[in-house]
Amino acid sequence: METVPAEEIRGRIEKFQKKIKEKGTDAAIVAQNVDLYYFTGSCQRGYLIVPAQGEPLYLVSKSYERALKESPLSNIRHLQSSRALPQILKETVPGFKKIGLELDVLPAFLYLRFQEMFSPAEIVDISTEIKDLRLIKSPYEIEIIRQGAEISRQMFAAVPRFLKEGKKEIEFAAEVECFMRKRGHQGAIHVRQFNQEVFYGHIMSGENLTRPSFFDSPTGGPGLSPAFPQGPGWKVISRDEVVIVDYVTAYLGYCVDCTRFYSLGDIPSLLQEAHQVALVIQEEIIKTAKPGAICSDIYKQACQMAEKLGFKDYFMGHGADQAKFIGHGVGLELDEMPVLANRQNYPLQAGMVFALEPKMVIPGVGVAGVENTILVTEQGLEKITVIPEEIIPV
Amino acid sequence: METVPAEEIRGRIEKFQKKIKEKGTDAAIVAQNVDLYYFTGSCQRGYLIVPAQGEPLYLVSKSYERALKESPLSNIRHLQSSRALPQILKETVPGFKKIGLELDVLPAFLYLRFQEMFSPAEIVDISTEIKDLRLIKSPYEIEIIRQGAEISRQMFAAVPRFLKEGKKEIEFAAEVECFMRKRGHQGAIHVRQFNQEVFYGHIMSGENLTRPSFFDSPTGGPGLSPAFPQGPGWKVISRDEVVIVDYVTAYLGYCVDCTRFYSLGDIPSLLQEAHQVALVIQEEIIKTAKPGAICSDIYKQACQMAEKLGFKDYFMGHGADQAKFIGHGVGLELDEMPVLANRQNYPLQAGMVFALEPKMVIPGVGVAGVENTILVTEQGLEKITVIPEEIIPV
Repeated sequence: METVPAEEIRGRIEKFQKKIKEKGTDAAIVAQNVDLYYFTGSCQRGYLIVPAQGEPLYLVSKSYERALKESPLSNIRHLQSSRALPQILKETVPGFKKIGLELDVLPAFLYLRFQEMFSPAEIVDISTEIKDLRLIKSPYEIEIIRQGAEISRQMFAAVPRFLKEGKKEIEFAAEVECFMRKRGHQGAIHVRQFNQEVFYGHIMSGENLTRPSFFDSPTGGPGLSPAFPQGPGWKVISRDEVVIVDYVTAYLGYCVDCTRFYSLGDIPSLLQEAHQVALVIQEEIIKTAKPGAICSDIYKQACQMAEKLGFKDYFMGHGADQAKFIGHGVGLELDEMPVLANRQNYPLQAGMVFALEPKMVIPGVGVAGVENTILVTEQGLEKITVIPEEIIPV
Repeated sequence: METVPAEEIRGRIEKFQKKIKEKGTDAAIVAQNVDLYYFTGSCQRGYLIVPAQGEPLYLVSKSYERALKESPLSNIRHLQSSRALPQILKETVPGFKKIGLELDVLPAFLYLRFQEMFSPAEIVDISTEIKDLRLIKSPYEIEIIRQGAEISRQMFAAVPRFLKEGKKEIEFAAEVECFMRKRGHQGAIHVRQFNQEVFYGHIMSGENLTRPSFFDSPTGGPGLSPAFPQGPGWKVISRDEVVIVDYVTAYLGYCVDCTRFYSLGDIPSLLQEAHQVALVIQEEIIKTAKPGAICSDIYKQACQMAEKLGFKDYFMGHGADQAKFIGHGVGLELDEMPVLANRQNYPLQAGMVFALEPKMVIPGVGVAGVENTILVTEQGLEKITVIPEEIIPV
């Protein structure tokens, strides 16, 4: 069982405490599974109290014994009932006046309960600080992401074995999923934003390529029913169709996002052209973006290129369902920072990892483009997913 | 594409409006995907405004066109920005003073934003009313659950084809998942409670059977890493081991929960005995529970039987990680009402569907028992999952 090194956890907690102090907060209480895992190395049920200074305390209701084994933290205690929280907080952070919580993900009823429990202390949102920390990946995290990218690479190489005319989209998807799962895909893909969820990703063919969904992405897909209206459907994959494989690898907690296209015969020339334009946009961004480049500028640059090359109306979606970004951070969650979009006026920094996905959605014709998971290094952008990018004939 | 019949949606909205009125609320705003689907037949991104009387209004930001196709509601409008909500609410519910929101699942930041937007109106929690409505399944919903149970039955029948000595748990799980997915498993399993999530369910063998997790269930499993510490792990399945298959079918939105055990050789006699005791408890509950029976009484009855038969310490888990229920409602979410547990002092009613899962967790020995999805009819309890219940030798 892989556990997060103590050194890694110590560094994260230290940086978090600095931010807690800067914000004028006496402590943060971390509750969400993914954040818990980031700061403790475990996501057993409970709360992590991080005082502005001193030892953090991981309170675990279930399973306490597993938390002891998984987390390198020294201060882990069994939590019998959450009613004990106010007393424990008083002892851990004497005289606390201001507490930080993850207000972006904490359900309202828990927020209200905490507000009452910790009254008269003020409750503030600490989620921006957490996202800021998680934005820069450590060498340890980058190594795991590289391992995930290898599973992704193997999967894309195996696609021609599974992708056959006459198969249903869902049947093809099931086999791709089975392949990844056997190599260690954890299944669960964590998405932070409310109501956003994804099951592996998007596998669609032909007319299903351009079906939008509730998911914030250039593509959507029909899904098997309106109850989960996303990804592969019941449609049979036919001759002369293009197939998208936009599947996330989630390995040892970390997401790798990558898209490739496959064709079963002729590809409409407009789609061929769209694909080349997407590749040109990708390469231009990789050539020019370096640490210090502003995220919103990169998005603007991409939009301008799409317009110049005649694909403005198809870039990242069509009409009202157009996605308004060209890249999104990946890590323990699929929707991390940085976001390459308008109003994201912060610079790229070494250690950031994001999915860059210039795609063209042409109604009645199809979807083309590419998506790679990219690491920002001191020298510039490095593709972590190294897989042929042309539309692959099968 | 299966869509929810207009009649079904109309009935749900009518019952909801009655509850909104009884609560003294002027309107409810439904935001969460699963609740949106229940009341609109669609879960495209947006909000459903349900006034205490009059037509509900489904506001959709993405994908509006899909919502039009999926939902039988007549009043669907494209939402350009959530900033327009207060004005739209004023027009739809003139003079509103009290608004119901799903405070159990709505993130705190959204709650705070709505509070500001709709000020000075009072915001109250409407989630109990929604859960109460969803508690009783319609004949339409029961028919879908029966279809899901058929996928579950086929999967359990196919297990002996996939379950082989020398295979890793994750490899076996991957094949089971592939089998279900090809038959229409939607993948995503919705769990309402904060931080509770499940990926298909629990497949474990031998020593991994008794590993607890953060998940509120008698079993847990190692998972592939502490980042998702649940379900199958890397362990190789060996001779003379017992294997649990506790996998959820999610079909056309609805969950079916079922557990069976398989053995690759000798079964410890204590585990054999534990299995028989669990079956006896199940049959006793099915024999005595009828509409009108109080949920907490059924739980007490089960606990008393486990004690009388000498399995008190192993019933539904062990030590601090013991689960405190014997059944949980299933439907669009895996953790619905009714819950067969202490303090659940309401009666069974015809149309309820729940998973009944008497299980024994014996540290150092293994896990045994059974889980079926059960429908409450006027006559009593009916097993929807009809599959042999003995430990199946492979």
